[in-house]
Amino acid sequence: MQTAAIGEIGLECGVSLPAVEIAYEAYGTLNERGDNAILICHPLTLDAQADVWWQPLIGPGKVLDTRRYYVICSNVLGGCAGSTGPQAHRPFPLITIRDMVRAQKQLLDRLGVKLLQLVLGGSMGGLQTIEWAVTYPSFVKRCAPMATSGQLSALAIGYNHVMRSAIENDPVHGLALARKIGMITYRSFELFEARFGREIKQEDASLQDTWFQIESYLEHMGDKLNGRFDVNSYLCLLKAMDLHDIGRGRGGAVAALERIEAEVLWVGIDTDHLYPPQEQRMWAERLRQSGKQVTYCELSSPYGHDAFLVEGQQLSKFITDFLRETGGN
Amino acid sequence: MQTAAIGEIGLECGVSLPAVEIAYEAYGTLNERGDNAILICHPLTLDAQADVWWQPLIGPGKVLDTRRYYVICSNVLGGCAGSTGPQAHRPFPLITIRDMVRAQKQLLDRLGVKLLQLVLGGSMGGLQTIEWAVTYPSFVKRCAPMATSGQLSALAIGYNHVMRSAIENDPVHGLALARKIGMITYRSFELFEARFGREIKQEDASLQDTWFQIESYLEHMGDKLNGRFDVNSYLCLLKAMDLHDIGRGRGGAVAALERIEAEVLWVGIDTDHLYPPQEQRMWAERLRQSGKQVTYCELSSPYGHDAFLVEGQQLSKFITDFLRETGGN
Repeated sequence: MQTAAIGEIGLECGVSLPAVEIAYEAYGTLNERGDNAILICHPLTLDAQADVWWQPLIGPGKVLDTRRYYVICSNVLGGCAGSTGPQAHRPFPLITIRDMVRAQKQLLDRLGVKLLQLVLGGSMGGLQTIEWAVTYPSFVKRCAPMATSGQLSALAIGYNHVMRSAIENDPVHGLALARKIGMITYRSFELFEARFGREIKQEDASLQDTWFQIESYLEHMGDKLNGRFDVNSYLCLLKAMDLHDIGRGRGGAVAALERIEAEVLWVGIDTDHLYPPQEQRMWAERLRQSGKQVTYCELSSPYGHDAFLVEGQQLSKFITDFLRETGGN
Repeated sequence: MQTAAIGEIGLECGVSLPAVEIAYEAYGTLNERGDNAILICHPLTLDAQADVWWQPLIGPGKVLDTRRYYVICSNVLGGCAGSTGPQAHRPFPLITIRDMVRAQKQLLDRLGVKLLQLVLGGSMGGLQTIEWAVTYPSFVKRCAPMATSGQLSALAIGYNHVMRSAIENDPVHGLALARKIGMITYRSFELFEARFGREIKQEDASLQDTWFQIESYLEHMGDKLNGRFDVNSYLCLLKAMDLHDIGRGRGGAVAALERIEAEVLWVGIDTDHLYPPQEQRMWAERLRQSGKQVTYCELSSPYGHDAFLVEGQQLSKFITDFLRETGGN
């Protein structure tokens, strides 16, 4: 992983953040024209190492073919995996999704990228993806937002709110609880039923000592994140998501969508509780009504919201077809 | 509201609970044969006052017609609205749904009820309803479980687990947080979107001061429950739900269902996240495969899991038709 000093950033909240550093991974080689780049935007608790968490998509011969494309993924501004965030500055200013995108743009400028063949990402990465296409229309040839929104929904704000409350109530164990709440919303009824059902930890446990496997799983996931993620960064990113609204200061969402020049592949997930398929279809439809080129595809998966991280094969096919149909491959 | 002393109860966990009292409401008059009774089982945070929270269903000329039926609703064992629970005994023993049903049976025996024309309830009340039909087959002529299950799912256990964690992490504010988590799962994406969307409290608030209406709503719901509900009772009832399994000690769920003699109206909700419609249809199908008379109806509503408390008109029609088709009206 590398780190780039990208200078000062004027944040949407009015504060100026000096000497910003952005951690990133790059795969493949940037061509001389600087126009063969692909940008991956990571979701809430992941980082710049996209070749780890999106392994099926990135590499020689894969859909994000590193023999052909210069594939970049950077840790978000406000994150805790190498980029400037609450660990470096206290108090850390309010960050928005637009600020994250602006930081990524300053990074790409420094790297000599002139055009993005594709911006893609799911969930919080999808918020950035759609923001990219609106903020820098001529810089983005294609974009693929997944399991995401142009304006965070009340349901998603509600879940962010309770995760925030968990941390406020108990700064020591709160992040683990927030993660446990998150994990339930990221998966589906079917998956939990198939994987855990009513299995208990000790088969011969008395009623009093009954501890279900789903509980062990959630505990484990909570503890794991607690050990690797900064709680202030988590709060910072949740707030950025809540505030995400492509229409802010642009005359509303529809007017914002009209700025887009990119061809769009919008990806929904049939079992997504947090960004349900009807919301995904609505955004695709809004784009279509704004006269944009948009392809809507839906992952069929028991993995719920997390399907965009799991269903590499389906996703590869969607992206391959999209690239081919839009002259990219 | 009245309170009845129902004596000692031998609990499923092995403990014997002496001098149990059960608070109840009764509407209408029990006939001489004692066979015109209807029992309503309340959900997690409600109480015996069914004429308040199920007002569209109960009264003269309504579907649960008090000129014809003797309609009873009692606060559950372990509750905090008049019945024996953690406020009376410390430490309070482990309670199961079966124990709640046994306590209700002892109450009905004391009141002279010989046969239930109908047992009905949703969510935790539905767990009791189906348990009633299995535990006392010849006592229950009809039953109508709603938005519920014969064995609590992994997803529902997961949500109960995080609500429990919230209380363990912060005994003072934890119940409010648990309620906030609960409220999100009880409603639907569509409802929150239509009612709150991205409305903020102060229209001209800066980004820093943005406070969404959905957050105010959740805060309000959390505080409200915190003021009226006992936290130990809440924990006791969550655990009872987790442990709910009609098949325990009976050779599994299918064998348990085969005991049922009642005609069954199973009610699902199309937008239920917590007890999703596919789960509801599965239980109806299982009953059918066990050779039982079962009618499956689905509420169409944006209210999610809470629809069984809101959609009085649809529910009245389902129950009216069911009673007519099974010779009850």
